[in-house]
Amino acid sequence: MSTERLVVIGGDAAGMSAAAQARRLRDAGDLEIVVLEQGDVVSYSACGIPYWVGGQVEDRDALIARTPAEFAARDIAVHTRTRAVEIDAGAGKVVTDAGERIGYDRLLIATGGRPNRPPIPGLDAPGVYGVHRLDDGAAIRAALDAGARRALVLGGGYIGLEMAEALQRRGLEVTVVLADPLPMQLLDADMAERVCAGMGAMGMEMHPDQAVREILVDEAGRARGVRTDAGSYDADLVVLGLGMGPEVALAEQAGIRLGTTGAIAVDRTQRTRSHPEIYAAGDCSQTFHRVTGEATHVALGTHANKQGRVAGSVIGGRAARFAGVLGTALTKVGDLEVARTGLCTTEAEQAGFDYRTDTIEATTRAGYYPGAEDIAIKLLTEAGSGRLIGAQIVGGPGSGKRIDVLAAAIWAGMTAEDLAGSDLSYAPPFSPTYDPVVVAARVVSRIEQG
Amino acid sequence: MSTERLVVIGGDAAGMSAAAQARRLRDAGDLEIVVLEQGDVVSYSACGIPYWVGGQVEDRDALIARTPAEFAARDIAVHTRTRAVEIDAGAGKVVTDAGERIGYDRLLIATGGRPNRPPIPGLDAPGVYGVHRLDDGAAIRAALDAGARRALVLGGGYIGLEMAEALQRRGLEVTVVLADPLPMQLLDADMAERVCAGMGAMGMEMHPDQAVREILVDEAGRARGVRTDAGSYDADLVVLGLGMGPEVALAEQAGIRLGTTGAIAVDRTQRTRSHPEIYAAGDCSQTFHRVTGEATHVALGTHANKQGRVAGSVIGGRAARFAGVLGTALTKVGDLEVARTGLCTTEAEQAGFDYRTDTIEATTRAGYYPGAEDIAIKLLTEAGSGRLIGAQIVGGPGSGKRIDVLAAAIWAGMTAEDLAGSDLSYAPPFSPTYDPVVVAARVVSRIEQG
Repeated sequence: MSTERLVVIGGDAAGMSAAAQARRLRDAGDLEIVVLEQGDVVSYSACGIPYWVGGQVEDRDALIARTPAEFAARDIAVHTRTRAVEIDAGAGKVVTDAGERIGYDRLLIATGGRPNRPPIPGLDAPGVYGVHRLDDGAAIRAALDAGARRALVLGGGYIGLEMAEALQRRGLEVTVVLADPLPMQLLDADMAERVCAGMGAMGMEMHPDQAVREILVDEAGRARGVRTDAGSYDADLVVLGLGMGPEVALAEQAGIRLGTTGAIAVDRTQRTRSHPEIYAAGDCSQTFHRVTGEATHVALGTHANKQGRVAGSVIGGRAARFAGVLGTALTKVGDLEVARTGLCTTEAEQAGFDYRTDTIEATTRAGYYPGAEDIAIKLLTEAGSGRLIGAQIVGGPGSGKRIDVLAAAIWAGMTAEDLAGSDLSYAPPFSPTYDPVVVAARVVSRIEQG
Repeated sequence: MSTERLVVIGGDAAGMSAAAQARRLRDAGDLEIVVLEQGDVVSYSACGIPYWVGGQVEDRDALIARTPAEFAARDIAVHTRTRAVEIDAGAGKVVTDAGERIGYDRLLIATGGRPNRPPIPGLDAPGVYGVHRLDDGAAIRAALDAGARRALVLGGGYIGLEMAEALQRRGLEVTVVLADPLPMQLLDADMAERVCAGMGAMGMEMHPDQAVREILVDEAGRARGVRTDAGSYDADLVVLGLGMGPEVALAEQAGIRLGTTGAIAVDRTQRTRSHPEIYAAGDCSQTFHRVTGEATHVALGTHANKQGRVAGSVIGGRAARFAGVLGTALTKVGDLEVARTGLCTTEAEQAGFDYRTDTIEATTRAGYYPGAEDIAIKLLTEAGSGRLIGAQIVGGPGSGKRIDVLAAAIWAGMTAEDLAGSDLSYAPPFSPTYDPVVVAARVVSRIEQG
């Protein structure tokens, strides 16, 4: 009999990180840990689904970091296929879809994200696929195995790009339909244009600025294409990459306070603002932006892991605080790598920054070294202080991970001039004498200096 | 007729960066710029020689960034095949090997590095090659074209590693002979062992702990191998990678003050400590370490470029200061990438730091993603403050450039805990959910916390 019981709703990155960390700090005699997961599996990599569909990964189980049995061996009880249907915060109980009422002393809500599903007729038809759970990946793979030839990808965010790559790798003709003028809305237009042009050059058909009005279905009711304001496009399968919101239905019903972003409001220990015994972490929770200090919502596995860990530490009795996010993100489509961190120009404007910006073009390696590819880096600095506040990268292989240098620099409050003077590495197979990051920092700091 | 004349001795990275920057700031009517270069070419990439030998680059001219004619078009007079043989600091003149005496108002000494040549009998024999000037590369290529089959590489620093790779790529049997117990003396032994084992696994014959006593020559006087304390090794060519010292003969003769490292002592504007009208930059000059604050000497093209630029700015009338070095370095041998920045344990001890250290092993990509390779990262932090003071990386493709994140973090004075909490990028083709850098930072910060 444990002194306390922690119930975790949702068994993916945030939930399982929290459970594991709480267990490290408190043993089973002191803290019972129960995880409720509606699906079959816990601790899976949703980010890996496009690569499973694309065939870089063949075994579904490779996407599963740890099984319920592995958690059970650490005295963490995972109930799969168990959906929490209600939080009775007054009574301190979670009600499951089996009608069970499980009491908690501490509760962690880790219900994750909910793929956006705009009210488009036909969106629920067979042949329309999300990319959220492993079952989604399995269904798309089945459609490919059944001979699908033409794919429509709706949306140009990370999932849209990654699925477009995956489906093209599998030999399908890929058409990307965007409600926005460009893919990658987290980039500035000049950088997003590079992505759009790159995807076109890969043979993907790009249709921007076209909101989808209807999913076209055949007599059997199966999706066969979409109709937009500008026309109709046929396909054998339709993949949704329309972004992700926080899954907060349970929390909202329980009267747990939401934040301005619509995600669950938490403090830096991941404790909710309304119920001191209830925590939230991962894609369902709100966080704050390191540069603006403002509330933000970023659905990403890294944050989910870290926030879960913070919640688990706090529940385990060890002081911990989540340090915020920069909105760092990285993806690729074919050989084109795309990354960003900090603020883009729209965000900088919204946040009230007077800023400087410039974009440089360079190569990923010494110009004479084989495999030197184009790379473009855009930087934003705060006017006056010269402090770095945002960065975007689009380029060939070797470009994307350079965003981490800029993320670290922004995190640390470095100015562009600091970074331009810093001692970054050089060798011909890895960079020109001046790394493109240094070139960008130098150019934008020179703009600051007039 | 210009108001002033700047004479630059040495037409490579430091000298030409200085000349170009001074010209940007002062026009030809105001400042005459004369560069004296003993070789045929200026602005060449010595770092590219191993890749020219290895065949990744076929055209020698690809290693030349700019020609004398291009500089002439910008009113920078470059005299190639012109060796400065004396600086007459009292008279403000440089004497050339043609007996010309060229007056200067400002002088920049950019004489570069001098490959170490220990007093080994036979070191001057034909068949023994340095890797310093383009002519060295041409000579090695000629030896390969003439059918060389077996190569001996003396030394296991960057040049040694890169030449071992190059010669193996060209189909030669490669034997590496080291006076030290391990290659890469700028790494700690545990990390250098990984490099040594990796080179062995590539089929290179590694002979550590064997000082070379004699170059063995045939009847024609041509090098045919080496004799060490432990044995003799045959070869068709012998390549020297025994490190580099500052080339300071001219400066020393002129009474210009040298620093504790034996390189020319300069302040942060690259001005010599003894002669206010004389500057020095690049491999011949001393600099300072950003972490220790102490004088150091690092021969590297990036520093040479930046120091030259600082000297050029100052001579051009614009305030500028060199910001110091971390000793960041990056190289590869085959598929094994090797990088370091800041202090290794020996340096940390010498500098009087109480430090913590740990090494982690991870993968470069998500474990399930094709091409995920092993990476080891070792970090050093200052005890108490937790400030990062050093990092070393050895791993497969995608490992090495991660050193830049650590270099930026050390530059900015970040603690391991700061870095562990920072928002570095994640996507399965690029990293595990927690980037190895974050994993390393977390582990070493936990050691700090006990």
